Amino acid sequence: MQKRKICVVVTARPSYSRIKTALAAIDHHPDLELQLVIAGSALLDRYGNAVDFIEKDGFKISSKVFMVLEGENPTTMAKTTGLGLMELTNVFYNLKPDAVVTIADRFETIATSIAASYQNIPLVHIQGGEVTGNIDEKVRHANTKLADLHLVSSDDARERVIKLGEDPEKVINTGCPSIDLAKEIRASDLYFNPIEKYGGVGPEIDFQNGYIVVMQHPVTTEYHESKKQILATLEAVDELEIPTFWFWPNVDAGSDGTSNGIRSYREKMKPQHIHFFKNMEPRDFLILLKHSKTLIGNSSVGIRECAYLGIPVVNIGNRQNRRLRAQNVIDVKAKKPEIKFAIEQSIERKNITSSNIYGDGEAGKKIADILAKTELSFSKTITY
Amino acid sequence: MQKRKICVVVTARPSYSRIKTALAAIDHHPDLELQLVIAGSALLDRYGNAVDFIEKDGFKISSKVFMVLEGENPTTMAKTTGLGLMELTNVFYNLKPDAVVTIADRFETIATSIAASYQNIPLVHIQGGEVTGNIDEKVRHANTKLADLHLVSSDDARERVIKLGEDPEKVINTGCPSIDLAKEIRASDLYFNPIEKYGGVGPEIDFQNGYIVVMQHPVTTEYHESKKQILATLEAVDELEIPTFWFWPNVDAGSDGTSNGIRSYREKMKPQHIHFFKNMEPRDFLILLKHSKTLIGNSSVGIRECAYLGIPVVNIGNRQNRRLRAQNVIDVKAKKPEIKFAIEQSIERKNITSSNIYGDGEAGKKIADILAKTELSFSKTITY
Amino acid sequence: MQKRKICVVVTARPSYSRIKTALAAIDHHPDLELQLVIAGSALLDRYGNAVDFIEKDGFKISSKVFMVLEGENPTTMAKTTGLGLMELTNVFYNLKPDAVVTIADRFETIATSIAASYQNIPLVHIQGGEVTGNIDEKVRHANTKLADLHLVSSDDARERVIKLGEDPEKVINTGCPSIDLAKEIRASDLYFNPIEKYGGVGPEIDFQNGYIVVMQHPVTTEYHESKKQILATLEAVDELEIPTFWFWPNVDAGSDGTSNGIRSYREKMKPQHIHFFKNMEPRDFLILLKHSKTLIGNSSVGIRECAYLGIPVVNIGNRQNRRLRAQNVIDVKAKKPEIKFAIEQSIERKNITSSNIYGDGEAGKKIADILAKTELSFSKTITY
Amino acid sequence: MQKRKICVVVTARPSYSRIKTALAAIDHHPDLELQLVIAGSALLDRYGNAVDFIEKDGFKISSKVFMVLEGENPTTMAKTTGLGLMELTNVFYNLKPDAVVTIADRFETIATSIAASYQNIPLVHIQGGEVTGNIDEKVRHANTKLADLHLVSSDDARERVIKLGEDPEKVINTGCPSIDLAKEIRASDLYFNPIEKYGGVGPEIDFQNGYIVVMQHPVTTEYHESKKQILATLEAVDELEIPTFWFWPNVDAGSDGTSNGIRSYREKMKPQHIHFFKNMEPRDFLILLKHSKTLIGNSSVGIRECAYLGIPVVNIGNRQNRRLRAQNVIDVKAKKPEIKFAIEQSIERKNITSSNIYGDGEAGKKIADILAKTELSFSKTITY
Repeated sequence: MQKRKICVVVTARPSYSRIKTALAAIDHHPDLELQLVIAGSALLDRYGNAVDFIEKDGFKISSKVFMVLEGENPTTMAKTTGLGLMELTNVFYNLKPDAVVTIADRFETIATSIAASYQNIPLVHIQGGEVTGNIDEKVRHANTKLADLHLVSSDDARERVIKLGEDPEKVINTGCPSIDLAKEIRASDLYFNPIEKYGGVGPEIDFQNGYIVVMQHPVTTEYHESKKQILATLEAVDELEIPTFWFWPNVDAGSDGTSNGIRSYREKMKPQHIHFFKNMEPRDFLILLKHSKTLIGNSSVGIRECAYLGIPVVNIGNRQNRRLRAQNVIDVKAKKPEIKFAIEQSIERKNITSSNIYGDGEAGKKIADILAKTELSFSKTITY
Repeated sequence: MQKRKICVVVTARPSYSRIKTALAAIDHHPDLELQLVIAGSALLDRYGNAVDFIEKDGFKISSKVFMVLEGENPTTMAKTTGLGLMELTNVFYNLKPDAVVTIADRFETIATSIAASYQNIPLVHIQGGEVTGNIDEKVRHANTKLADLHLVSSDDARERVIKLGEDPEKVINTGCPSIDLAKEIRASDLYFNPIEKYGGVGPEIDFQNGYIVVMQHPVTTEYHESKKQILATLEAVDELEIPTFWFWPNVDAGSDGTSNGIRSYREKMKPQHIHFFKNMEPRDFLILLKHSKTLIGNSSVGIRECAYLGIPVVNIGNRQNRRLRAQNVIDVKAKKPEIKFAIEQSIERKNITSSNIYGDGEAGKKIADILAKTELSFSKTITY
Repeated sequence: MQKRKICVVVTARPSYSRIKTALAAIDHHPDLELQLVIAGSALLDRYGNAVDFIEKDGFKISSKVFMVLEGENPTTMAKTTGLGLMELTNVFYNLKPDAVVTIADRFETIATSIAASYQNIPLVHIQGGEVTGNIDEKVRHANTKLADLHLVSSDDARERVIKLGEDPEKVINTGCPSIDLAKEIRASDLYFNPIEKYGGVGPEIDFQNGYIVVMQHPVTTEYHESKKQILATLEAVDELEIPTFWFWPNVDAGSDGTSNGIRSYREKMKPQHIHFFKNMEPRDFLILLKHSKTLIGNSSVGIRECAYLGIPVVNIGNRQNRRLRAQNVIDVKAKKPEIKFAIEQSIERKNITSSNIYGDGEAGKKIADILAKTELSFSKTITY
Repeated sequence: MQKRKICVVVTARPSYSRIKTALAAIDHHPDLELQLVIAGSALLDRYGNAVDFIEKDGFKISSKVFMVLEGENPTTMAKTTGLGLMELTNVFYNLKPDAVVTIADRFETIATSIAASYQNIPLVHIQGGEVTGNIDEKVRHANTKLADLHLVSSDDARERVIKLGEDPEKVINTGCPSIDLAKEIRASDLYFNPIEKYGGVGPEIDFQNGYIVVMQHPVTTEYHESKKQILATLEAVDELEIPTFWFWPNVDAGSDGTSNGIRSYREKMKPQHIHFFKNMEPRDFLILLKHSKTLIGNSSVGIRECAYLGIPVVNIGNRQNRRLRAQNVIDVKAKKPEIKFAIEQSIERKNITSSNIYGDGEAGKKIADILAKTELSFSKTITY
């Protein structure tokens, strides 16, 4: 029997972390052959060169696709997507996969969806059905309407995808693969010195008695607000004088507003308790989080992995909007006083229980099993 | 006060017919400025050179975009869309419209949707919420999820868009602009000799005592079936020996199957009662329909305009699938005996009343009024 | 020792015929690995689907690239080239060849040249240094200035490339690979009935007592003239009433002028002695030529292969312009009387000797040997 | 009489400085209409946002084209060119210029050349015929072979273009427009404090008693050498302890090697006498040069403007290779000791006379006059 060829397109560092255990499960499944395509910012130095981690993790890459236009503005986002669509079409045409997997809701993921669905290749969408805001909201649900099989991360998401007119039999809650890694980390007693291992920039902070972690991305459609927003967080964190590990944002329209904000604040204010990192291997990042007092920012890690790990989170602004939350999350607006107050509260929280709302840590395996066994099709009609 | 700039992208001949009265209403509205972009097959000889009709109708074209890749297969459809996305992004960037209008569900319409929504330009989708099958089903609903304002053609469609999680205030039934022209034609007593005016190929048929009209397009995802399907219709019609005007299909993956089917049938069988046309001005086509005994094929004109005109229709196959029908339509499978029997029945039907399910003939004016007055935004969240 | 990877890009049916023996020699060379990329019109039905012949000939294709935009006008030619450049860049990036081979002077060949040279891959140009006119003249010499190694087809061409400032050691006259096939055909006594084998359209002509062959391509920069020019040839040939095999032109801006001219002439005038073919395997085409009285048109086959085969040729217009000729060629303008007169003269010519100006029939082998042994580099400076 | 529409494509900050006086002369010429297209890195923050200067200078921009792919490596250079070709084709198609002007030899300039020549628009190449090395050498001469009219900057360049087979009547030495600005600066007594006006980074150096200027770009095909080379210059300059103004390089493959070299040297070595700038208005840069002791690096400004201004120059490496030099230039290899020694010599040089080899300061006016009067064509054949 021929193995099913499953083509997964990874376009960014965070998408890789999120899908990694599924990739491994597909790669090892006796009935599946993994075709891994690395594209977009996952190939670029400026965004952490995910491709290097991926190769180090032992994955064989079937195709690499440069597609990111310079400019980091809404216009180049759209053109990047068009370029990616043209290129990925070619890649699928040559690889002839039995199914293509598109991940979540980054703007360029719709290129994967169109390239597959227009070529009559069954399209699998991972992590549909959630709710945020902005352009990723539009992209996510458009991906759902282009996809033939939906592997979602929560019951809440499953209900929503079904409401969108998808056949309930084609909507399966596998949990989120990012929780798989969190499960492994939670069970381990790994520890390391992040400054020794990753360098980073900024003062040599004393983090032995506890630290906090910050990761805040720009919010796409509020391009000119990015700088103002990041400064609110910077000032709040700086004033608290708690040892802090701060992570640079990944690529998105507006990242310059955010990056410039961080850069200029660093140069002018020389914050004494903040050490900055450009990126970190996902497992190390989770280890770091596991031992932290709280996570601050707007990363989906706070909503997902931290729910499972039981880490308190201060979630800033509307980037995660209406995504399903466990009780580990405090939501605040992007205002300095509110952020500062919420951080103080968050680090005092005790006894946050681990939540399974985003899965039980077996998502990768479940995804691979479904991809091996489910009937694949590329034609559908809305259910109502 | 500045006029609102409304950019409409027309990518194919049939889309132009469908939107024409709205274009005129926008163009003449005191508070609106029309930015008309002609792209895709609307620029190409092989697909009827819609651009010539458009200019003859007096519209000023803001930009022309060549984007169709040769090949007419699923791969080139996807690449055409990617190319269109890159180009249209540029066009919108330079034209700076206040809103962009994308029409219906052709594969390349999603390029318009992405180019606008990613650049934070309010996106208006015309004719969402209907149900068909195949790739246009996916495209239509994906367009809905990318759009901010929905101007639909029937109450049925309005309900469906709202179910898809759109804000009811942003979903308005204007009726279909194609009905506007049908209204005008129904009220007139225009008549003409199609062979004299358009030439066409095939025998000089005697159509004074009644004739039928055929227009059958390929069905995208059944690429290899196209030829078989068109032959079923050709044989059925040929055997009936009724004077027939037959229209070539427009561009789509598979058009070669259909076109080759017609071409080879003509050369081998030399059908004595069928005269073929490549294209016809929309108003002339409606006049021709108005005086016909029945329309055969799978064109949406049978579902929409013929409902209003009260013309009986034999609708073949699943291209119009679950689109809302008035009682003028008989549905059949793409099998010769069924088609033949249905045609015989259809031409005997009497007293088909005009139906308003796709509008009352004022859609163009309504669309322009809404575009002039409604609040425009580019941010939304699903309603559930 | 690692084999050298030689990537050859074939973008059209005639380019394939021209390079075929070199492809075979590279494929069989112990020190070389052939990476064959098929792109552009070589993938398209409308232009003879060269890809099918290539696969039938036993070549393994490393990558297929759809890149031709519809429209067949100067604008789509330029966009096709841009698209091809983007795609081929990706292909080379993934194949990592040690050298890339670009062939002659079709408009899209510069995409190959740029994709290779910008990526610091040694670029080999086949058939540079010739002289024609129009856009291919510009393209050919631009290819020369981008290329690092020049394998030319005649001494005349070699001198010209050196005059263009290239290092004489990097300019080698291998002869033209198209002559290799001609040599084989000349030595054989193969024969076949072309109508039986290929069908074609038009009357069943009686060619047993001799026939002529016509192949006339459009001339790019004289777009609107194409129809007029082809009609001159059609009328001249039709009036002579000699059995004729006529070949449709390949893709180029203006092919519609030419194709439409042929199509409308056929329908209106129903020429009684002309049988039309869309394409033919190159070796069959040469066998057909070998037994013909003369070749008419503007194909480079008349200049090259027919020189070696000793077949008289009537060369029409300026497409072959100043290309080196043997004495088998009569040049005429695209006027009916001159064409008619020249054909009459040409079929009377006797004792045309075979000429080696385009090679001795060993070009394929020579090319492979040079590619295996020569030092490859990607940096150069003009010699003056 | 209709004005001739002259479309000039500016793709980078340095190209703008070089063509500025010609743009102004075209804009003001009674028989010409300027169509200014700003593309590529000229639109990007990271490369100095030339577009802002251009608009501040009062030019009206006809079209903006985002086309730069992220990655700054040979692969993205090639894809950027392909993308630019597609986009510029569209721009020319819509602007319908009577002639298109492409400037010099940056990698993406060939996109302009192809988009114009393939669409049968007369192509004017500015600054052809020079000699350097690397990819710009290939690009420059390929541009020459695609262009119909050559407006070169020196007699030496004119001879070379003619040798390349161009019609001598179509090759005119106008001098380089960059000299026009130099002429104006030389005649003026303008002066300013660069740190006050531009900020920059690094120590507040005391430059009242003389300073030197450094501008060193990466050399494309020696990607991995870039860092080593820039460090040689940094060390040499740092050891000399002369007040220095250092300019960051513009975009090119390898700029990261160079930029990283500068960045890491600054952080580690904290050079006490070097102040860094990202960019400066061209006229201010020339004023700064005019008052400097010497220019160091590999910028073409050292070869051209400094020849006219009589400023001594240390030219490092092979980027300017065989470009025509006046006696103001000392050439050295990219080795620390040689650079250091050459700087010491260069700052002692006296009485360097102004040279006219790159023009007399009237190039802009001459270019506009020629574009207004010369016969424009788009067809040519090599002269030998």
